[in-house]
Amino acid sequence: MALIVQKYGGTSVGSVEKIENVAERLIAAKKAGHDVVVAVSAMSGETNRLVAMANQISAKPDPREYDVLVSTGEQVTIALLAMALKERGYDARSYTGSQVHILTDSAHTKARILDIDEAKIRADLNEGRVVIVAGFQGKDEHGNITTLGRGGSDTTAVALAAALKADECQIYTDVDGVYTTDPRVVPDARRLDKITFEEMLEMASLGSKVLQIRSVEFAGKYNVKLRVLSSFVDGPGTLITYEEENMEQAAISGIAFNRDEAKLTILGVPDQPGVAYNILGSIGDANIEVDMIIQNVGGDGTTDFTFTVHRNDYGKALEILNKTSKELGAREVIGDNAIVKISLVGVGMRSHAGIASQMFKALADERINIRMISTSEIKISVVVDEKYLELGVRALHSAFGLDAPKD
Amino acid sequence: MALIVQKYGGTSVGSVEKIENVAERLIAAKKAGHDVVVAVSAMSGETNRLVAMANQISAKPDPREYDVLVSTGEQVTIALLAMALKERGYDARSYTGSQVHILTDSAHTKARILDIDEAKIRADLNEGRVVIVAGFQGKDEHGNITTLGRGGSDTTAVALAAALKADECQIYTDVDGVYTTDPRVVPDARRLDKITFEEMLEMASLGSKVLQIRSVEFAGKYNVKLRVLSSFVDGPGTLITYEEENMEQAAISGIAFNRDEAKLTILGVPDQPGVAYNILGSIGDANIEVDMIIQNVGGDGTTDFTFTVHRNDYGKALEILNKTSKELGAREVIGDNAIVKISLVGVGMRSHAGIASQMFKALADERINIRMISTSEIKISVVVDEKYLELGVRALHSAFGLDAPKD
Repeated sequence: MALIVQKYGGTSVGSVEKIENVAERLIAAKKAGHDVVVAVSAMSGETNRLVAMANQISAKPDPREYDVLVSTGEQVTIALLAMALKERGYDARSYTGSQVHILTDSAHTKARILDIDEAKIRADLNEGRVVIVAGFQGKDEHGNITTLGRGGSDTTAVALAAALKADECQIYTDVDGVYTTDPRVVPDARRLDKITFEEMLEMASLGSKVLQIRSVEFAGKYNVKLRVLSSFVDGPGTLITYEEENMEQAAISGIAFNRDEAKLTILGVPDQPGVAYNILGSIGDANIEVDMIIQNVGGDGTTDFTFTVHRNDYGKALEILNKTSKELGAREVIGDNAIVKISLVGVGMRSHAGIASQMFKALADERINIRMISTSEIKISVVVDEKYLELGVRALHSAFGLDAPKD
Repeated sequence: MALIVQKYGGTSVGSVEKIENVAERLIAAKKAGHDVVVAVSAMSGETNRLVAMANQISAKPDPREYDVLVSTGEQVTIALLAMALKERGYDARSYTGSQVHILTDSAHTKARILDIDEAKIRADLNEGRVVIVAGFQGKDEHGNITTLGRGGSDTTAVALAAALKADECQIYTDVDGVYTTDPRVVPDARRLDKITFEEMLEMASLGSKVLQIRSVEFAGKYNVKLRVLSSFVDGPGTLITYEEENMEQAAISGIAFNRDEAKLTILGVPDQPGVAYNILGSIGDANIEVDMIIQNVGGDGTTDFTFTVHRNDYGKALEILNKTSKELGAREVIGDNAIVKISLVGVGMRSHAGIASQMFKALADERINIRMISTSEIKISVVVDEKYLELGVRALHSAFGLDAPKD
């Protein structure tokens, strides 16, 4: 008998029938003798319906009230799922984020989980109940309702698994695992049986969209065994594990990409200590996440500074950067929101030389111009013009032999 | 400067535009220098949408989860209303029932308010904020979400007014006050400027539907000045006050009626102490509210016992009564759910003789057969066949001179 945390996203609970389908999956896990805790998202379409009403009232709805509004989406799902289980003779109990004290900071619409009081959940499990928790939401220390931002239900599931020391955290989604790259772009893409946390972290942060990055960080930090599975097709999915040192590794596990990038550059900043902080501090204060950062020092005592943000934040970031530019006496601010990022990811990279030059050659062969480069121990990312995304990903997938069966 | 609690029902907040209209009314009250607390219902249609989903899953949805589900309706309204105020430059803050600790008992779908912690609301008022509270909902001592049942938002408003010792509690609805009877039945019905709490209590409980009975009880108990107004038409509405002893009273203030009644009779119950408790105890345990009760003792040592319930509860009550009948060795259970109740209400009844016989004559003149009679100090109720409702109400409205201007 194991303790399993499952998570079902919006498409998996997108109708009453699908919610009943999830109830059957939970019952199967109960019948297999497991204790089950489940985190669910809002029914697909529901959040958009709510946001549309908010936007009728305000172009920029108050963030505190926005969280009060959208958190109703998951609350509807948990109630319906609990009813479906009860109707089938299985005891279940639903909880909002507030009710199980999912304590977060107060950054409305982008809050972070600080703590979970698992006592209530544990007591229900001891009574044989399936415990259903609203994903994506929590409360801050003052009791205000908060939401975790995009993909936050994954984070809820992992945080629950960590707090409960669950044997496995299973993320049910509309794909049956983690692929070498997006099969919509490369039809030959393969499902990976296993992937390391570090690789997954890079894959997620770079836009593979299977899991929210914060949930993978959480899982790594608290040693939660994470598995990605399909809620529509049976199968083993992809297990996300710690790196096994003696494991034979291919150089590259997968190719991630991100269409949602925008690039901003501030040119001719008088170079002095604290410049990077002055530029990025105000961006961070606005709760904008910065992805890649590059700084070049020119010969004239000035420096050029480039970074990328989510495309949704482009306008706001440009506004802030123009203000900073004036304060710092910089020459110019330029931006481009028609760019994408493509990344090779693989822990094998550490023990294989020449990966970077092989990557750059594959792109050059297709006459794709590289606009930015950034590297870490287990990934190499390039920024290219939006129009080259598909071509670039396919060229790299083929160049690194990801199409072929792995063994 | 006064402290005013306002309440807006489902039709008053039935669309984003109507919510914005409510925001303007709240701003008008703020501009007049008042502190404002507001309780709101779910947008009209929203509760039905949620209940329809629940009924797809179960004919009898689990009550705890039903409350989790339907309470999202008011939560949507409070968030949108707070956004609308903020958008107009007025500080506001929304709270669910749980967040302002509207403590209730645990009778899911029909809970009663036990206590409100007004400290948070008071603090917000001191900061100049409009405080927006979700009507109809609370939490029990274990933190479970509860709902108050039909019309519960009225009760929320009155309970808030009592806890805050507000100067007035204004119930905004789609009618502009309390009428001598339903204008849809009697076109000449008149709006009353004032009505006593006792009369209102009888009017509401007997089906005038302007206010929920529990809210009027609450208002009377805690001395809350209650006013019913239209959210669409300006006007003074009807003030609900304590009886002024030296006030010249007409015999009758109004005629209430209730289409939602059903009648159950248990015949030939062996008459012994505790019979009434045995019969009604199990009905009460099922959370079914009993309205009129009549007991006749026969000559053969048995008794006949008749009572009325809400028509929705008829099937369940019949089922319970049949079981009780077997246990008590009664002869037979019969029922009728095609009946209505018509009541004359008026504190002036106390000092005017002959009201009852005048009432029975008016009905007899129209050849309406009376099936049950029940009286209290300030009302006389009769049960008649459903088909006589309109005829009976019009006959009585005219017989007691309610069509004529009052003074």
